[in-house]
Amino acid sequence: MTVRVLVWGENRHEQIDQHVRDLYPDGMHTTIAAGIAENLGDEARVSTTTLDEPEHGLTEQVLAGTDVLVWWGHAAHGEVADDVVDRVHRHVLSGLGLVVLHSGHWSKIFGRLMGTTCTLRWRSERDRELVWTVNPTHPIAQGVPHPIVIEQQEMYGEFFDIPAPDELIFLSTFSGGEVFRSGCTFRRGHGKIFFFSPGDQDYPVYHHRDVRRVIANGVRWAAGDRPRETPTLLRYESGDFFHGHGYTGPIDD
Amino acid sequence: MTVRVLVWGENRHEQIDQHVRDLYPDGMHTTIAAGIAENLGDEARVSTTTLDEPEHGLTEQVLAGTDVLVWWGHAAHGEVADDVVDRVHRHVLSGLGLVVLHSGHWSKIFGRLMGTTCTLRWRSERDRELVWTVNPTHPIAQGVPHPIVIEQQEMYGEFFDIPAPDELIFLSTFSGGEVFRSGCTFRRGHGKIFFFSPGDQDYPVYHHRDVRRVIANGVRWAAGDRPRETPTLLRYESGDFFHGHGYTGPIDD
Amino acid sequence: MTVRVLVWGENRHEQIDQHVRDLYPDGMHTTIAAGIAENLGDEARVSTTTLDEPEHGLTEQVLAGTDVLVWWGHAAHGEVADDVVDRVHRHVLSGLGLVVLHSGHWSKIFGRLMGTTCTLRWRSERDRELVWTVNPTHPIAQGVPHPIVIEQQEMYGEFFDIPAPDELIFLSTFSGGEVFRSGCTFRRGHGKIFFFSPGDQDYPVYHHRDVRRVIANGVRWAAGDRPRETPTLLRYESGDFFHGHGYTGPIDD
Amino acid sequence: MTVRVLVWGENRHEQIDQHVRDLYPDGMHTTIAAGIAENLGDEARVSTTTLDEPEHGLTEQVLAGTDVLVWWGHAAHGEVADDVVDRVHRHVLSGLGLVVLHSGHWSKIFGRLMGTTCTLRWRSERDRELVWTVNPTHPIAQGVPHPIVIEQQEMYGEFFDIPAPDELIFLSTFSGGEVFRSGCTFRRGHGKIFFFSPGDQDYPVYHHRDVRRVIANGVRWAAGDRPRETPTLLRYESGDFFHGHGYTGPIDD
Repeated sequence: MTVRVLVWGENRHEQIDQHVRDLYPDGMHTTIAAGIAENLGDEARVSTTTLDEPEHGLTEQVLAGTDVLVWWGHAAHGEVADDVVDRVHRHVLSGLGLVVLHSGHWSKIFGRLMGTTCTLRWRSERDRELVWTVNPTHPIAQGVPHPIVIEQQEMYGEFFDIPAPDELIFLSTFSGGEVFRSGCTFRRGHGKIFFFSPGDQDYPVYHHRDVRRVIANGVRWAAGDRPRETPTLLRYESGDFFHGHGYTGPIDD
Repeated sequence: MTVRVLVWGENRHEQIDQHVRDLYPDGMHTTIAAGIAENLGDEARVSTTTLDEPEHGLTEQVLAGTDVLVWWGHAAHGEVADDVVDRVHRHVLSGLGLVVLHSGHWSKIFGRLMGTTCTLRWRSERDRELVWTVNPTHPIAQGVPHPIVIEQQEMYGEFFDIPAPDELIFLSTFSGGEVFRSGCTFRRGHGKIFFFSPGDQDYPVYHHRDVRRVIANGVRWAAGDRPRETPTLLRYESGDFFHGHGYTGPIDD
Repeated sequence: MTVRVLVWGENRHEQIDQHVRDLYPDGMHTTIAAGIAENLGDEARVSTTTLDEPEHGLTEQVLAGTDVLVWWGHAAHGEVADDVVDRVHRHVLSGLGLVVLHSGHWSKIFGRLMGTTCTLRWRSERDRELVWTVNPTHPIAQGVPHPIVIEQQEMYGEFFDIPAPDELIFLSTFSGGEVFRSGCTFRRGHGKIFFFSPGDQDYPVYHHRDVRRVIANGVRWAAGDRPRETPTLLRYESGDFFHGHGYTGPIDD
Repeated sequence: MTVRVLVWGENRHEQIDQHVRDLYPDGMHTTIAAGIAENLGDEARVSTTTLDEPEHGLTEQVLAGTDVLVWWGHAAHGEVADDVVDRVHRHVLSGLGLVVLHSGHWSKIFGRLMGTTCTLRWRSERDRELVWTVNPTHPIAQGVPHPIVIEQQEMYGEFFDIPAPDELIFLSTFSGGEVFRSGCTFRRGHGKIFFFSPGDQDYPVYHHRDVRRVIANGVRWAAGDRPRETPTLLRYESGDFFHGHGYTGPIDD
């Protein structure tokens, strides 16, 4: 079954900063999408949308037709409308996979799902980032070297204010000696979430072969377990909200 | 150091339902507070407040003087003002302990911290609830029988839509054969959260010796680790948000 | 890629107890294997072996050609030779998937991997077991009702002395009101382990459609992430034990 | 209640290597013990023992009178007798706290409790180690800077082959860019285990103020929750092994 992937890009730096346009002439979202398509081939159908589309390109209809949403934002988190965030939140809890990249740590949707500030320390001074695998059998870690070497990247450092991840997959170190939980998974409701920190508008990280592989692995993982058979509830009598909230009679009446 | 405990009660059923008033003549919050005081003695100073107080009794000043907030609400979650929820949320992430009881699973503050729907299945038909310990060395489980027997109680059943708890302490079963993760801990930011499901307005559960002991244990646990010494950050140069978000220079300049 | 599954059966009750032979005329291992084959079809090639084979049927060559080992034992845990346990342990840590069923909780191999006593409470008096899903998007939970109803089964109750599972998938309740963490996953080294408690020699549980589905799901899950590409280690100079123990030079010389 | 702490030292390098004797003239165990005593004061009574004592100083009587055992070994793991390891294992599962330091990752007792190889990568070339806190409210992290700076230390790097820790508290980075999960907790049976990697015979790490503070915090944490009241089991009829393995009658007869 083909995974329907939607890459959401803020697409503002690309309009304003020549430096970013040089790195990502077709927009960061396009480069990210190309990396996923290159790795997943026929397994996925990848499309893109951006903040400036009506409803940020995230209508009810679009989300209903999406299996995994990939999110990159940075400068304009505040411009994402709250009702669109509500809608994406509802879809994630109902089974939409979500891959949050880099500065997406401070997006409204990630904060809504985590319940914490999602703050961290940072420094953009061309640190080398090394991405080490601490969960070597996890499907998201397949096919990449240990460590992944990113020659130049923004530093993201602990303390990263997130809930303890369900699974910790990657840890990054930086030239300055800092450390970061750079690859983490979370399950929320029916949805699976993968946060992966490498990637920034000021560095060509989304052209990096291994980073593209990890993001594609994350998409495949986030899509993987969406229930395709509805659980049968014995003698469930009323109410139906997500997993069946409400009054339930005894099962052995 | 004395733990400053504030029990927040919705206090509506007690005004309206004679049945509830019979069980809790001084209000549920008062009974809950008495159970904590009885178990913690000099270790705690326990006070109460309710929804109908100005700002629901949860002003900035009150919260700043509280170590652990205990929350019971049921019929009027929607009446809790969003800006008060914002304030409590900020305090929890900054280190306020939070003990959420029973129907508080659907309170705004719990949902905000969890990021999920927090829905569950229920049936109020005088089921017997058995509360089994699955983490016998945890401080919250000390001093109670295995199982705790609650002769009559509302049934709460899975699926309970919460993130995987950091620690699972109690599992409950009911006469109808249902199961529920009835004692769970979570860390969010600097705050510690304990959810404990036994307790309902229609049953005398907050008079139950073992239930009172667990709630008191939870209060002590949630208070326990609040940082009393501020971490020293080497060469941290700017920005300061919760744990120090913002630009940071290399530590070894 | 076909999953190579080996079902290991103790095969002693079937030789001694007419009651068990009536339920499982071809041996429990054969019934378990049939349930896996029926669910996975071409996806798996399923074979069986038993305790009384030379080296219990678990030679180095057999294990090297196996992706997932399914383990059922009960009365003769002590007869499993320690060097065979050492061998299976080494293979699991190197990537062999392991599905441990019911009384296998007290097998040497499970204890070796868990590091705890793996004790529990039990009572074989024809309790009804209900198996509830608490992780509804997990692949192991796909396609089964909520709850699974097993009309007659041995009771297994908490406290079950295992490490906190990496993932908790199923919780069971029994007629007597007991509760049990009946479906749990663990990662150890490169290996994935699924423990599933329903199933006993005295009840026809391995003929139960939903139980067979869960075991097959567990096999698929345990096979799923075995690394097929060896991680490249930059500038790794000496030693090689599992993931590369030993001296390592700086990566950026 | 005074915590009874026993520091176990291998005490071999100190006999053989002048360099180690210069750093730890009274033995490493004595220095480690002094650091604990200095931080816990009247809260603890700290003693020491070593490998060359009869039964390695770990008789049944000694263990029965100990609340927390601190373990440092390196060159002679193989000389620790298996029956003593069995005995320590049994005591940990019954509630003895255990703090495992540095090269103790490869001790028999740690391997027995983890079930994995506990291998890692290493390089002893005077790397600077930075120890970062990722769980800032945890009691083990109280009172230390972020990061702790250790000017010279052996490098320990991932992949560290342990089960996913129950709690991850510290992450270390090294001059070479490596990363290590350097502070982890585990619960096994009734026992609490803290692994902390800083510390080596070739560096004066156990004289470091912050390292001593962390080890003392770990001792306090590992002692903290030992059950002092035996759980009452309703209608439990036979068998008694650790937490009560064996046949149990229905609770509501």
